[in-house]
Amino acid sequence: MSASPYKQLEQEFRRLHAFRGALALLRWDAAVMMPRGSADVRGEQLAALETECHALLTTPRISRLLDRAQANSQGLADWQIANLREMRRQRDRAIATPVSLITRLAKATARAEVHWMEARQQGRFEPFVPYLEEVVNLVRDKAALLGQALNLAPYDALVDEFSPGITTADIDAVFKALSRRLPSLIREAIALQEAHPVLPITGRFPVSKQKAMVVEIMKAIGFPFDRGRLDESEHPFTEGVPGDIRVTTRFDPNDLFPGLLGALHETGHAMYDLGLPQDWHDQPVGRDRGMSLEESQSLMMEMLVGRSRAFVRYLRPLLERHFGVSGPEWEVENIYAHLVRVRRGPIRVDADELTYPVHIMLRYELEKQLLNGELTVRDLAEAWNEGMERRLGVRPANDTEGCLQDIHWAVGSFGYFPSYALGAVIAAQLYESLRDDVPDLEQQIARGDFSGLLGWLREHVHGMGAKVTVHELIQNATGRPLSAAAFLRYIENKYLVDYAARSAAA
Amino acid sequence: MSASPYKQLEQEFRRLHAFRGALALLRWDAAVMMPRGSADVRGEQLAALETECHALLTTPRISRLLDRAQANSQGLADWQIANLREMRRQRDRAIATPVSLITRLAKATARAEVHWMEARQQGRFEPFVPYLEEVVNLVRDKAALLGQALNLAPYDALVDEFSPGITTADIDAVFKALSRRLPSLIREAIALQEAHPVLPITGRFPVSKQKAMVVEIMKAIGFPFDRGRLDESEHPFTEGVPGDIRVTTRFDPNDLFPGLLGALHETGHAMYDLGLPQDWHDQPVGRDRGMSLEESQSLMMEMLVGRSRAFVRYLRPLLERHFGVSGPEWEVENIYAHLVRVRRGPIRVDADELTYPVHIMLRYELEKQLLNGELTVRDLAEAWNEGMERRLGVRPANDTEGCLQDIHWAVGSFGYFPSYALGAVIAAQLYESLRDDVPDLEQQIARGDFSGLLGWLREHVHGMGAKVTVHELIQNATGRPLSAAAFLRYIENKYLVDYAARSAAA
Repeated sequence: MSASPYKQLEQEFRRLHAFRGALALLRWDAAVMMPRGSADVRGEQLAALETECHALLTTPRISRLLDRAQANSQGLADWQIANLREMRRQRDRAIATPVSLITRLAKATARAEVHWMEARQQGRFEPFVPYLEEVVNLVRDKAALLGQALNLAPYDALVDEFSPGITTADIDAVFKALSRRLPSLIREAIALQEAHPVLPITGRFPVSKQKAMVVEIMKAIGFPFDRGRLDESEHPFTEGVPGDIRVTTRFDPNDLFPGLLGALHETGHAMYDLGLPQDWHDQPVGRDRGMSLEESQSLMMEMLVGRSRAFVRYLRPLLERHFGVSGPEWEVENIYAHLVRVRRGPIRVDADELTYPVHIMLRYELEKQLLNGELTVRDLAEAWNEGMERRLGVRPANDTEGCLQDIHWAVGSFGYFPSYALGAVIAAQLYESLRDDVPDLEQQIARGDFSGLLGWLREHVHGMGAKVTVHELIQNATGRPLSAAAFLRYIENKYLVDYAARSAAA
Repeated sequence: MSASPYKQLEQEFRRLHAFRGALALLRWDAAVMMPRGSADVRGEQLAALETECHALLTTPRISRLLDRAQANSQGLADWQIANLREMRRQRDRAIATPVSLITRLAKATARAEVHWMEARQQGRFEPFVPYLEEVVNLVRDKAALLGQALNLAPYDALVDEFSPGITTADIDAVFKALSRRLPSLIREAIALQEAHPVLPITGRFPVSKQKAMVVEIMKAIGFPFDRGRLDESEHPFTEGVPGDIRVTTRFDPNDLFPGLLGALHETGHAMYDLGLPQDWHDQPVGRDRGMSLEESQSLMMEMLVGRSRAFVRYLRPLLERHFGVSGPEWEVENIYAHLVRVRRGPIRVDADELTYPVHIMLRYELEKQLLNGELTVRDLAEAWNEGMERRLGVRPANDTEGCLQDIHWAVGSFGYFPSYALGAVIAAQLYESLRDDVPDLEQQIARGDFSGLLGWLREHVHGMGAKVTVHELIQNATGRPLSAAAFLRYIENKYLVDYAARSAAA
C-alpha cells in the first residue's frame, strides 16, 4: 500500500525544507565567510536552488496531492489540517508568480543592489533611479498577479508574503493610534531627559572581550552553541534552521552597546526559531508565523528585556568582570538612562523605541504610493526628506541619510517595513500578559534567569509554529485582539511616568 | 526556434554544477564551521541535494537529449564532443546505481562512520566488524551493477569512479615495478640517512605566525584569496568550485612542517581546479580528470616542490622573517634533510615518499580481496597486520594504528586508494618533462617564482580539463605512456645518488 496523499505531501515538503536549509547556509556563508570575488558563483547556486524550490511547489503532482488530501481530510489531526493549509498557501503563492517573473526580478534586484551601494557611497539618489524604477515595475506586476490569485489588494498581497494574515486595515489601525500619541510623547520624553543629563559612557572595549561577554549572556538565555554559532557581519542577522542556527552581530570597539543589543535582537529571533514545534520542524506548519511575529520576538529581547532596569542589574556585574569598569557612569541607573535615551535622528537602525515607528510609518506611506503610482521613483528623495521633516522634524543631510539608507526596496522587499513597527506593538502586548503570568519576571531577569520569559514564550508563541493565524495567536496569548494600546501604555510608563519618578528620586 | 539538444544539455548540466557547488559548500561548512550537534540537519540537506543530482541525471529527458545530440554531433567542436562524452559518462553511472541503493549505502556509511570513530578511540576493530560488513556488501552490489552497465570488472568499475580511464591492469603494472625496487631502495636510503644524522629542529611556532607565512607562500604560488580561503580543520582538504575554492590545513604549534606541507598539498589541488578551462567551468568537460591526476598535482606541490632544496632556499628567509630562527639546524641542508627523512612507520598519512606507496599497495591488495570474498571483514585486522609486517617490517601496536587508521572503507570509498600511489607516479613523470621544458625551474622556485611551474601545468594538465583521457594527457604532456620509470628515477636520484653526494661533500 502506498503512502496517503497527505503523507506524500509531507515527504515533498521535507525535501523543500532541506533545500531551504541549504539556501540559508549559502546565504549565511555569503555574508560571513565568502571571499569577495565569489558573488557571481554564489549567485548561480542560489538561483538554481530557488528555482528548484519554486518548481517543486508548482508541479501538477503537488496540486493533485493537495486536492486528494483535502478530500480525505476527515481523519487528520488539527496540526495536520493546519499543515495542509500552509502547504496550500505556499503552493498558491508559487503558482501565482511565474518563474520568468521571479528570474527577471532576481536579475533586476541584483543590478539594483550594486547600484544602490554605489549611490550610497556617492550620497546621490539620482544615478540609482532607473534601477529602482525597474524593480518597482516588476514588484508592481508581482503584486497584481499575487493579489488576483489570492483575492487580496496588490499591496496586501505583498505584506502577506512577509506577515501572513496581516492586512492594510490592521496596519492602518495600529499606525493611526501611534500617530495620534507618538509626536507629543517624543516631545515630552526628550524634554524630560534633557532636564536630567546622563553621564557619558566611554572607553575601549576589545572585540574579543565583548564577544566573550555576549556569548555568556546568550548561554544564559539558552542559546545552544552546540547547534548554533555567533559570528560577526556587516549587519546583524539570523540565518539557518533550528538545529543549526546562526546569529551575527557587529562589534564597535568604542561602544559596548551596539554589539550587545544587536546580539540580543538576533538571539530573540533565534530563540523563536529554536522554540518552534520540533515534531513539525521540516513541515510548513512548523515554521515561524511571519516577520511581524519574528520582529516581536527580536524586539522584545532587545528593547523590552535588553533595555530594562532588570537586565541592567544582571549586566552590571558582567561588565565589571569582563572589562573591569567602575565609577558613577557605570551605575545601574546611568547605564539604564543611556539605553533608553530618545533622540530625533535621520537613521532608522539607530533609532530608539519612540522614534522608530515614525521611521516605519514614513516608509509605509511612500512604498504604497510608489506601487500605486501616486509617487514616481524620481520624486522619492524629495518626498522622503519632506516626510522626515514633517513627521520627525529632521531633514537628512544627504540621500545616504535619506531614502538610500535601507536596502529593502533595492532588493524588492516592498511590504516588509510594517512588520518592524507591528513587531514592536505585538512585543509590548505579549509582554504585558507575560508580566501578569510571571509575577517575578524582573527579579528572574535581574539574576540572569530567563526561564520564566522563555517558558511563557515557548507555550504561547514559539511552540505554536504556524498552526494559527497571527491574530489568533495574539488573541489566545493575551486575551485581546492586536492593538497599539499595550505599546502606548508601555512607552508612556517607561519614558514618562517611571522616568520622571526615578529622576525625581535621584 | 528552441535551443539545440546539445545546448539544452549544457543548460541541464549548468544546473547540476550549481547544485554540486552548493553541496561542496555544505561539506566545507560541515568540516570547518558547523556546530557539532548539527550533523543530522546537515545530513538531511546533503541527502536531498545528492538525490536531486541523481534524479537530474537519470530523467528520460536527459537520455533523449543525449541521443539526439549524438545523432546531430557533426556540427560540434571537439570540446563539445568531449563534453557530450563526459555527460554520457555521468548519466551511465547514475542510471546503473538505483537511488534505493544509494540511499541504503548513504545510511550504512553514516552508521559505519560513527562506529569507526568509536572503534578507533577504543583501539579495537571487532565492534566495527558488522558495520563494515554491511558497507562491503552494499559496495559489492554497487560494483556488480556498475561493472555490468559499464562493461568493466566490478573492482575496475569502482576505480573508474575516482580515476576515469584507469584499470586494474594499469595499477598492477605500476605497482609491480614499484614492488621490485622499493624494498631495497627503502633499506638503502635509511642506511644512508642513519650514517648522516640530522640536527633536530624544535621550537614553539604560534599558529597565527604559521598561518601568516603559509598565506604568503600561497600568494606567491598564485592562490587567489579574493576567490578562495584558507582555514583550519581536523584533516586538510580542498573543497568548493573554481571561483570559490577553499583550502584547509592543520597547524601544530610544536612543529612547523605539517601545517606548511598540508597547505602545499591542498594548494596543489586548488591550483589544478583554478587552472581548469574557464570557458567550460560549469560543464562536465571542464572538470578535473579524476583523483589520480588530482593527487599528482597535490603531491607534486607537497613532495617534488615542497621537499626540494630549491623550495627550502625560498623558505629559509621566510622562516627567519616570520619566526626569527637562526642557528645550524636552520641551515638549508639541515632543513632539507629533515624534510626528506625516510622512516618505516605504521601510519599512511605520516609516511614519506618512499614508504607511502607500500601503504597503498597493502590497501589495494586487501580491498580487492574484501570485495571478491577472498578475505572476510572479520579477518581484516589480522591480514592487515601480517601485510604490514611482510611489506614494511612494521607491526601496528593496535588496530587504531592498523586497519582502523583510514576513514575510506567506512564511508564506502573502495577503489580510491590506488589514486594516491598513481598520483605520486604521475607527478614524477610530469615533473621530469616539466624540468626539461623549464630549464631554470629550480632557480625560479628558489626565488619564490612559481610562474614556470604553473605555466607548464596550465598548458599541459590543468587547462585540458576532462577533454582527453588521463592516458592521453600523460602521453601528450610527457611523450610517453604512464609508467613508474620516472618515479623510480626521481626517488633513486633524490634519496640515494644526490643524498650520498651531498652528504659526502658536507
